[in-house]
Amino acid sequence: MARSDGRQDDELREIRITRGFQEWPAGSVLVEFGKTKVLCAASVTDGVPRWRTGSGLGWVTAEYAMLPSATNTRSDRESVKGRVGGRTHEISRLIGRSLRACIDLAALGENTIQLDCDVLQADGGTRTAAITGGYVALADAVTWLGAAGLLADPQPLSCSVSAVSVGVVDGRVRLDLPYEEDSRAEVDMNVVATDTGTLIEVQGTGEGATFARSTLDKMLDVALAGCAKINELQTAALAQPYPYELPTPSPKGKK
Amino acid sequence: MARSDGRQDDELREIRITRGFQEWPAGSVLVEFGKTKVLCAASVTDGVPRWRTGSGLGWVTAEYAMLPSATNTRSDRESVKGRVGGRTHEISRLIGRSLRACIDLAALGENTIQLDCDVLQADGGTRTAAITGGYVALADAVTWLGAAGLLADPQPLSCSVSAVSVGVVDGRVRLDLPYEEDSRAEVDMNVVATDTGTLIEVQGTGEGATFARSTLDKMLDVALAGCAKINELQTAALAQPYPYELPTPSPKGKK
Amino acid sequence: MARSDGRQDDELREIRITRGFQEWPAGSVLVEFGKTKVLCAASVTDGVPRWRTGSGLGWVTAEYAMLPSATNTRSDRESVKGRVGGRTHEISRLIGRSLRACIDLAALGENTIQLDCDVLQADGGTRTAAITGGYVALADAVTWLGAAGLLADPQPLSCSVSAVSVGVVDGRVRLDLPYEEDSRAEVDMNVVATDTGTLIEVQGTGEGATFARSTLDKMLDVALAGCAKINELQTAALAQPYPYELPTPSPKGKK
Amino acid sequence: MARSDGRQDDELREIRITRGFQEWPAGSVLVEFGKTKVLCAASVTDGVPRWRTGSGLGWVTAEYAMLPSATNTRSDRESVKGRVGGRTHEISRLIGRSLRACIDLAALGENTIQLDCDVLQADGGTRTAAITGGYVALADAVTWLGAAGLLADPQPLSCSVSAVSVGVVDGRVRLDLPYEEDSRAEVDMNVVATDTGTLIEVQGTGEGATFARSTLDKMLDVALAGCAKINELQTAALAQPYPYELPTPSPKGKK
Amino acid sequence: MARSDGRQDDELREIRITRGFQEWPAGSVLVEFGKTKVLCAASVTDGVPRWRTGSGLGWVTAEYAMLPSATNTRSDRESVKGRVGGRTHEISRLIGRSLRACIDLAALGENTIQLDCDVLQADGGTRTAAITGGYVALADAVTWLGAAGLLADPQPLSCSVSAVSVGVVDGRVRLDLPYEEDSRAEVDMNVVATDTGTLIEVQGTGEGATFARSTLDKMLDVALAGCAKINELQTAALAQPYPYELPTPSPKGKK
Amino acid sequence: MARSDGRQDDELREIRITRGFQEWPAGSVLVEFGKTKVLCAASVTDGVPRWRTGSGLGWVTAEYAMLPSATNTRSDRESVKGRVGGRTHEISRLIGRSLRACIDLAALGENTIQLDCDVLQADGGTRTAAITGGYVALADAVTWLGAAGLLADPQPLSCSVSAVSVGVVDGRVRLDLPYEEDSRAEVDMNVVATDTGTLIEVQGTGEGATFARSTLDKMLDVALAGCAKINELQTAALAQPYPYELPTPSPKGKK
Repeated sequence: MARSDGRQDDELREIRITRGFQEWPAGSVLVEFGKTKVLCAASVTDGVPRWRTGSGLGWVTAEYAMLPSATNTRSDRESVKGRVGGRTHEISRLIGRSLRACIDLAALGENTIQLDCDVLQADGGTRTAAITGGYVALADAVTWLGAAGLLADPQPLSCSVSAVSVGVVDGRVRLDLPYEEDSRAEVDMNVVATDTGTLIEVQGTGEGATFARSTLDKMLDVALAGCAKINELQTAALAQPYPYELPTPSPKGKK
Repeated sequence: MARSDGRQDDELREIRITRGFQEWPAGSVLVEFGKTKVLCAASVTDGVPRWRTGSGLGWVTAEYAMLPSATNTRSDRESVKGRVGGRTHEISRLIGRSLRACIDLAALGENTIQLDCDVLQADGGTRTAAITGGYVALADAVTWLGAAGLLADPQPLSCSVSAVSVGVVDGRVRLDLPYEEDSRAEVDMNVVATDTGTLIEVQGTGEGATFARSTLDKMLDVALAGCAKINELQTAALAQPYPYELPTPSPKGKK
Repeated sequence: MARSDGRQDDELREIRITRGFQEWPAGSVLVEFGKTKVLCAASVTDGVPRWRTGSGLGWVTAEYAMLPSATNTRSDRESVKGRVGGRTHEISRLIGRSLRACIDLAALGENTIQLDCDVLQADGGTRTAAITGGYVALADAVTWLGAAGLLADPQPLSCSVSAVSVGVVDGRVRLDLPYEEDSRAEVDMNVVATDTGTLIEVQGTGEGATFARSTLDKMLDVALAGCAKINELQTAALAQPYPYELPTPSPKGKK
Repeated sequence: MARSDGRQDDELREIRITRGFQEWPAGSVLVEFGKTKVLCAASVTDGVPRWRTGSGLGWVTAEYAMLPSATNTRSDRESVKGRVGGRTHEISRLIGRSLRACIDLAALGENTIQLDCDVLQADGGTRTAAITGGYVALADAVTWLGAAGLLADPQPLSCSVSAVSVGVVDGRVRLDLPYEEDSRAEVDMNVVATDTGTLIEVQGTGEGATFARSTLDKMLDVALAGCAKINELQTAALAQPYPYELPTPSPKGKK
Repeated sequence: MARSDGRQDDELREIRITRGFQEWPAGSVLVEFGKTKVLCAASVTDGVPRWRTGSGLGWVTAEYAMLPSATNTRSDRESVKGRVGGRTHEISRLIGRSLRACIDLAALGENTIQLDCDVLQADGGTRTAAITGGYVALADAVTWLGAAGLLADPQPLSCSVSAVSVGVVDGRVRLDLPYEEDSRAEVDMNVVATDTGTLIEVQGTGEGATFARSTLDKMLDVALAGCAKINELQTAALAQPYPYELPTPSPKGKK
Repeated sequence: MARSDGRQDDELREIRITRGFQEWPAGSVLVEFGKTKVLCAASVTDGVPRWRTGSGLGWVTAEYAMLPSATNTRSDRESVKGRVGGRTHEISRLIGRSLRACIDLAALGENTIQLDCDVLQADGGTRTAAITGGYVALADAVTWLGAAGLLADPQPLSCSVSAVSVGVVDGRVRLDLPYEEDSRAEVDMNVVATDTGTLIEVQGTGEGATFARSTLDKMLDVALAGCAKINELQTAALAQPYPYELPTPSPKGKK
C-alpha cells in the first residue's frame, strides 16, 4: 500500500533549512519538513534563571508554540485562553532537554540561550522539525557567543542533534509522518539522536493499541537512518558562513 | 536633517504584499513595510460569537500578537505570562474595528472571519502593516466565501482599507516611522483610511509632549497621501488570481 | 433635530468637580459630567516601578475601572473574571499617558503618583471625565508633595489637561455624548487638550462607517471649545484651598 | 480609658443610610458607619445560576470589594492581580448567606438579586456596614420586583437583618470598632442579627489571644443591643418612599 | 429522634490520631473523626514571608485542600480550575489563625512552619479535624525545631488547640456532625478552644434560618465539652515519643 | 557497586497494592513502590467531555498531582500557583493514554472513568506507580459498571497494564529507581507494558548525556521483566473480592 505522497516507507519528506530568517536573534532558522514549517530563533540573554544564579553555569531553554493559523482548522490562541496547554508544555520541555544534551553549559558562563520554536505551518512532525532547526539556531548562537568573547571553552557543542518521527500506518513502519498519516497511526514514535548515532530521547506510544518489541526495533532502525540523513543536511547548512555580522569581543548580549 | 534610511519625509518604506503565504487559511498574506513583517491570516468559521447568534449577521474579528523573537530584544511570550497585555488588546481591537468598517456584515450570514495578525519581525508600524495586510487577507476570505456560495450579497466589501503611521521626529513630520524614529518621536499618529479618502480611525498621541492643531493637519495630509499609495499596492496585489483552489458551492467552512 | 436632553449641539452637560471626596488619598476628586460620575483618587507612593528604579525620575500611572452597578445593565466584575478586559486596559493607558504629558517627571524624584479612576455611575464619556477629574486629583497630589518637601522643582505641572468626547449623531456633530447618543453615534472621537489649546491625544473612530476629513475638522473645533470651558471649571475648583491638612516637610509618603 | 473618638464603649458611630444613590440598580444604598462608606447596589437579573436552573427558586448572592483608594495605604486592585483574595471571598460569602436568611427564595421565582457592596472608604467594620446597607438595598429590590408583578408571594422578607462589630480593646468590650481600634483588638467579633433578636451569624476570633466564655457573653450583649439600634435606622430609612419610579407589571428585569 | 449512627447527641465520633504518617515533614499526622480523614503535615522552612522579613519573628500558616476523590461525588481539582475557591481560602485562613493563637512567634526566630491539611476522605467536620490534627503536627514541628537548636524559647506553645463542629439537626443540638447531618442542619457552628477552656474562634451560622441566643449557649456548652475530650486524645498521642529521628543542633531546615 | 538499599540491579522495591482505600469512589487503590505511595481513585461519572458527546463512546482520563508534603523538600501547591505545571500535565496525559490502551471505550457507553492519582509520598517512580495502581482502580470501576448493568460488553478490558522505571546509574542498568538514584541517573526510562508482553509506551531520556542503542535494549529487557512481575501482583490483588458493596442494575452513577 503506497503512501499518499508517493514516498518510500523509509523516505524523508523534502527538508529545507534556511539560516538568518529574522533580523535580530543571534540564530534564526526556518526549517521545513514538507509542508511543516517551523521558525526556530535562538536569543542570547545575560544571566540565568534565578534558581541557577551564582552557579557559574549557563542555561539553554526552549518554548514551542503554534500560530492559530498554522493548522488545518484554526486553533485558539493560548495567550487568549490564559494558559499554556499540556501538549505545548510537553514539547517545550522535550526541545530544551534534547538541546541541552549536546552542549557544555559550563562553557556558556552565566548566559542563557533561549530557543523559540514557532510553528508557521503544521503538517505533522512539528516537534522533530523544531529540534532539528533548533540545533542549527543554537549552533549559530554559539558562534555569536564565541565571537563576542563570552565562551569559556571555544567549542561547547559536543555533538549535533537531529530528530524525526516514525510510526506504524496501514500496518507498515513509516518515516516522517505527515498529518494525514500521523492522525491514523497505530504507533507513533519520536526519536532524537546525535551525529554519532547515540540516542538522546525515545518516545514511543501505542495510540489505542499496543506494539511488539520487534516493531519498536524496526522503528528505531528506520528512525536512526533518517536522523543520519537529516544530520547531513544540518552539516551542509552550517557549512555556510554565519548569516549576520559577527560581534567583536565583550559586548553585553545581542538580543 | 536627513532620515537615517535616506528616505524623504513623506516617503513610504518599500512595501511588499505576498498572498497565499500559508496553506490552510482562506486568506494568508505576508505584508512587509521595510523590515517589519506581519503574517495576516483570515480563517472562515461557521457561526458567530454567542452574543450575536440568531441575528443573521456575520462577524469579523482580529487577534494581533508578536513572536518573542520578532523584537530587537526578545519579549516574553504572553501565553507563558498567562495574559494578554494592554497594548496587544488595544491593537487587536483596532484591527477588527478598522476592517469591520468596510464590510457589510449582513452579507456574510452567520459566519465569522477571524483575522490573525502575527508579527514575525518588528521594526515600527506593525499595527498599520497588520491592517494593510489584513484587508488583503479579508478580501481573499470574501472571495472564498463567494465561491462557496455562502454570501447573501456578492460584493460585501464597500471600500478598501489601508493604514500608515506618521509622526514628528527631529521636529519634522515624517511618514511610516521605523523603530529607530518611532522610539524618539515627539508625536505619533496612526491613520486608517479608505480608497475614497475618507477616514476610519485617527489616533494621535503626544509622547510626553503636546502638539499644535496645525501639526495635526500636516500629519493628516502626509498620512492620507501615504494611504493612497498603499491602496494602489493592495489593488495590484489583489489583481492577481486567488492563490488557492476555489471551493465549489455549499461546503461548510474551509478552516 | 433636537438632542433628547435639550442641549445645543456644542453644549456640555452640567459638570461638577468635588475635591476632597475621600479621606485618605493625597488627591480625591468626584467628577460629574451629567449622570456620569467618576471618583478619581491620586495616591503618592515611595519608589517607582522596577524598570524605572535608579533613574531619578518619578512616575504617574492610572487604573480605570467600573463598578458592576455603574451601568444600565449590571456588568461582571473583572476581579471575578480573573482578568482586566481590553477596553479597561486601553482607557487606563490613555489616562496615564494624558496626565504624564503635563508633568515634569524629574521634579517628582523617585515617587509615584497612582491615579485610580473608578466609575460610580456611567452615562457616556467616562474616560474623558476620568482624565478631567484625574488632572485635578493629580494637581492636589502635587500640592501635597510640595508641602512635604519632596519636589525637586516647585511647579512640575507645565499645563492643565482636560478631555471631552464629540461625535456624529443623527448626522450632526455633537459635544459630550451621553450613553443614549454614544451608542448610536456614527463617528466617535475623544480629544485631550491643554489649557494652551494644544493637543495631547486625538482618537476618532468611525463606528461601522467612515467619515470625511471635513467632519474631523468640525469635530475638533467643537471639542477644543469644550475643553476650554472644562478647563475653566478645573481652574475654579483648584482656586479653592487644598482640602486636607498639608504635611510638613520630609514625611515619607501619605498614602 | 476613653475611646479616641470620645464614644462610650457600647455606643455606635454615627450611621447614615442613603437610598437611591445610583441611577440604574433596583436598589442602591450608601451606608456610612462613621468614616466607613459602602455602596450597596441590588440588581435584579432574569434567571438563576446554572446549578439552580429549573428549581423554581430564586437566588440572592453578593460580591464585596474595596476601591484601591478606600484604605489608608492604597491597596492593589484585585482585577489587576488577576484573582480575588481570600478575605474578599470570605466577606462576599458572609453577606450573601446573611441576606438569604431573611428571604423566601421560592417567592422570587427564577430571578436573581445580585448585591454589589463596594467600599468607597474604609475605617473598620466594612463587612457589617455592607450587610446593614445590603439589607436595605435588598428590600428596595424586593419592592421593585413586587411592583413588576414578579413575586409569587407579596412579602418574601421574613425579617430584617443588621450587623455590627464588637471587640476587646484595651481590655474593654467595645462596640463598632474603627480601624484604629480594630487593628489592635485582642478579640474581634461580627454579629449578624434580625429585628426579632435572633442570630444569623456569629464570628468571634481571638487575635493572637484567646478569650473566656464570659467575654463572649458580654460581647454578644453589647452587639445585640447595637443591632437593635441599627435596625431602627433601617426601618426609618425604609419608611421613606421607594426612591425610583416603580415599574408596571410584567417587565423583564430592570437591571 | 435517634442519630443515624446511634450516637448520643453530645457524643463524638471515634477519633484517631496517627503521628509520623509521612516520611519527610517534621510533623505528619493522620487524624480521623469517624470516616473523615485529614492528613496534616507541618514542614519547617528557613525564612518568613517577605512582608515579615527582618522582624525577627517566625510565622505559622496553613493550606487546606480536598482530594477530588475525597467527597461522595467527585469534586473538580482546584489546580485545574486555576484558582482556589472561596471555601478553601476561608478554611485555610481559619486553620492558620487558630494555630497561631497558641504559639509565641518570637520564639521561632525567622522560620516558618507550613501546615498542609489535605482531606483524604470527607464526611463532615473536615475543618475541625484539620485544626485538631494540625495542632499535633505543629507540636511535632516545634519538637524538631527545639532539637535542632533553632528555638529562642524552649517552649513556645502556650496552650493546646482542638476544634469540633456542633449544630442543630432535627431540632436538637448535636455534636460532631457527619455529612448526612451537616447537609441538613438548621444551624452550624465550629468552635476552636484551648485546653484551658478559653475560646479561639467561634463561627455559628444559621443555614437559611435564624437561631435564638439560648441555642447558641447550648451549642457552646456541648462544643466545649467535646473539645475537652479531644484535647485528652491529643495529649495522649503526644505522650508517645517523637516519631522520627531528632536532628542535632544547627542544621538548616528539615523540609 | 551495590545499590544503597541493597537490591540487585534488576530487582523491584517491595510493592504493595491495597484496594478499597477510600469510601466513595468505585475504585480506590493505594499503591506503594517502597516509600513511594500513590492513591489512585477511579470515579464513574455520567456523560463524556463535550467534544465526545453523541459518539456513543465512553472516556477514560487521568489527573496526577502531588501533595505539597509528599516530597523531601515541600513543594508549592499548584492550586495556589494558579496553574498546573508542565511536568504534572505530562504525567496526567501519560497515565490517561496508557490506561485507554487496554479498554474498549465503546463498551462503556457514554460514561467517563476519571482516575485521580495523588502522590501521598514521593521517592521516585511516582508515574509508574500511578499507572500500576491506576489499572487496578480502573478494573474495580469496570466491575462496578458491570454490576450496575452499564456495560455494552461484559469484558471491556483487553489486557492489563503495568509500568516501571529503569535507568543507568553508576554506569549500570538498574530497575525501579528511588529518588536517590533517579536524581543522578545518566539515562532514565519509563516503560508501560501489557500482560502479554507488548508495549504501550516507552520514554527514554538521556539526562545531560546520550546513550547507545545497546543500552536501550538492555533497559528494555530489564523493564519488561519487571513489568511481568508487577503484573503478577496486580493479578493477585484483583483475585480478592470487590471491596465494596456492588450496585444492582440501572443506578445512575456511583460517584
